[in-house]
Amino acid sequence: MAPLIVDIHTHVYPPAYMQMLRARKTVPYVHDPADANAPPRLIILSSDDDASIPLDQRGRPVDASYSNIEVKLAFMRRHGINSSVISLANPWLDFLAPEEAQTWAERINDDLEATCAGVNRAADPENTRALHEKETLYAFGALPLSAPSAEVVVREIRRLKTLPHLRGVIMGTTGLGKGLDDSRLDPVWKALQETDSLLFLHPHYGLPDEAFGGPEAINRYGHVLPLALGFPLETTIAVTRMFLAGVFDRFPGLKILLAHSGGTLPFLAGRIESCILHERKFVANGGDVPGPQRSVWDVLNTNIYLDAVVYGTAGLKAAVTAAGGADRLLFGTDHPFFPPLGKDDEEWPSVTTNYKAIHAAFEGEGETVAGVLGENAARILKLK
Amino acid sequence: MAPLIVDIHTHVYPPAYMQMLRARKTVPYVHDPADANAPPRLIILSSDDDASIPLDQRGRPVDASYSNIEVKLAFMRRHGINSSVISLANPWLDFLAPEEAQTWAERINDDLEATCAGVNRAADPENTRALHEKETLYAFGALPLSAPSAEVVVREIRRLKTLPHLRGVIMGTTGLGKGLDDSRLDPVWKALQETDSLLFLHPHYGLPDEAFGGPEAINRYGHVLPLALGFPLETTIAVTRMFLAGVFDRFPGLKILLAHSGGTLPFLAGRIESCILHERKFVANGGDVPGPQRSVWDVLNTNIYLDAVVYGTAGLKAAVTAAGGADRLLFGTDHPFFPPLGKDDEEWPSVTTNYKAIHAAFEGEGETVAGVLGENAARILKLK
Repeated sequence: MAPLIVDIHTHVYPPAYMQMLRARKTVPYVHDPADANAPPRLIILSSDDDASIPLDQRGRPVDASYSNIEVKLAFMRRHGINSSVISLANPWLDFLAPEEAQTWAERINDDLEATCAGVNRAADPENTRALHEKETLYAFGALPLSAPSAEVVVREIRRLKTLPHLRGVIMGTTGLGKGLDDSRLDPVWKALQETDSLLFLHPHYGLPDEAFGGPEAINRYGHVLPLALGFPLETTIAVTRMFLAGVFDRFPGLKILLAHSGGTLPFLAGRIESCILHERKFVANGGDVPGPQRSVWDVLNTNIYLDAVVYGTAGLKAAVTAAGGADRLLFGTDHPFFPPLGKDDEEWPSVTTNYKAIHAAFEGEGETVAGVLGENAARILKLK
Repeated sequence: MAPLIVDIHTHVYPPAYMQMLRARKTVPYVHDPADANAPPRLIILSSDDDASIPLDQRGRPVDASYSNIEVKLAFMRRHGINSSVISLANPWLDFLAPEEAQTWAERINDDLEATCAGVNRAADPENTRALHEKETLYAFGALPLSAPSAEVVVREIRRLKTLPHLRGVIMGTTGLGKGLDDSRLDPVWKALQETDSLLFLHPHYGLPDEAFGGPEAINRYGHVLPLALGFPLETTIAVTRMFLAGVFDRFPGLKILLAHSGGTLPFLAGRIESCILHERKFVANGGDVPGPQRSVWDVLNTNIYLDAVVYGTAGLKAAVTAAGGADRLLFGTDHPFFPPLGKDDEEWPSVTTNYKAIHAAFEGEGETVAGVLGENAARILKLK
């Protein structure tokens, strides 16, 4: 029997979202080249929006894999994936004007629900077959974070629980605009905890250009610095700020799935903990700032789930050690990003690299491999 | 027989250097409070130089452990360390006016040599005892990176080879002012390769404040964000820029010891490699930029050494997996930073955490533990 494979890190830009991006001229936007044979360009990173690069070459080419669910289903079949938990890709709805946010969140989330329902019904009309015997979709919902108040976000979190195929929410690192240690987010954390909704925390904004030596140094290497380093470092900073601000003390039931195996959190957890124990500013060390009450290890073992999108055994071993076991580690692909640069119909090296790393890191541990590939996700997200 | 223990990550500010800092009013500087009983303050991080904090409380208290070698020797005895490879602490000589750089580099390096020679002669006048039976010091030299030309740096690298206790050089991440992918550094890499000098790459500058949400967000948590995250992320970015610029292709014999187990390089190596393989800008993928010729794994297995200053088994497991074995992993303490906040005479938790992590990560592998604790350093640095 082939193992159950669930992809919990896989993105979509629904057609309505792509249309909205086409109407925009500032990041994020889609540009259609004058040459009708040339693919549209997707410009989502601020470092991509470089006026010295012709519009027709800016950003990255975007094809049907970003918005056509049939292409994703074909990708799943090619890689043996039974179930995908799809999520809106970055930058989500972060950039919307306050008055547009709620409408777009409802539109996107209703669209995700309809897409999942349609695919699942077609695959198994009576819903009688086991998960590993069919092709199914579930989704993480988008949040109206730019809405005029956190109350709008809370309402959407509660509404998502009424949509049968939604399994949590995806969020970037800016929160309501001031990062995830902003106390104005407390009602959001409270709603996520009360509704037992998993939060998929995902990077988008990277680091300021100067962290990489400025735009010239960045562009010398294409997307490598912002994507390979900026993304995971952003995630690490965001979740560390949440931790330092005591979010996990106030909301001990919060469940967060960190993209890219936690950015670098598993590797740096020990250093973070050591720096906290040596920080004179915290009350525990004689200072006047409360500081976090729980250890970072406790939070990693209780509140945090990690995807297995880390492209190597070194990262996986840190992830599983920091998480206190492989049952918090979940396979993902990051589709449709990192497509093969060769032929369209081949296996994706970005996916096979992660498959190979999982098999190599847990060699001889069949149950662990099965857990990471799909059983953990099915259990944690209650897929059926 | 007690194992040989070598500390390759341990810093000093020689008295002459402290005097120089006392004469300065901009970062880095030392401030002596009006209250003669209060300890002097060391202000080395730009985030410490906050005008809203009274001078007497700015930065961190600095005691004799930073400049008095007897205090370091007592620290070594307390923790069972046989040999320390001392290095000037950050920010080294980076901030000096061009015309001062060479003089200060020679002064500091001659001082390090004299200190090591004096201690080693006192411990073993005839140099007949084995390394694990005595107390010895070796050193990494400082470089005059702000000198008017790279040639001055090259001359100091060559001169260091004539000083019997010098075992390589320590360097920050700015190089000649534009980062480590600056082609003007090629003569420096060439000199390091030709003289077979180990380069200890160490962070200081961290990340721009905005990466952490600005100065207010940073100061809320004391030094935690800049030290726990800014430092290792800076190292990761610096060495990745070197790698992307082909430094390890042009100088395949370069040997680099990365502070804090590589920042986060072991964890992110897979993602870096995957992003390179998917970067359309590189020649291998049809673009016009050469891109690195060797894989990041090859460089990690050939050119890079990692200290074991990572405060946990998760980080150590990633480090040893990425480095292709534990023989490139070297014990360190980061003394005199991260002192215990309690009594002066106790064991340092920052040190015992790393001892415990090494024993736990390599449980049942006595030879591996012995290698990481000291034998690797003795072999690689030719200590005797």
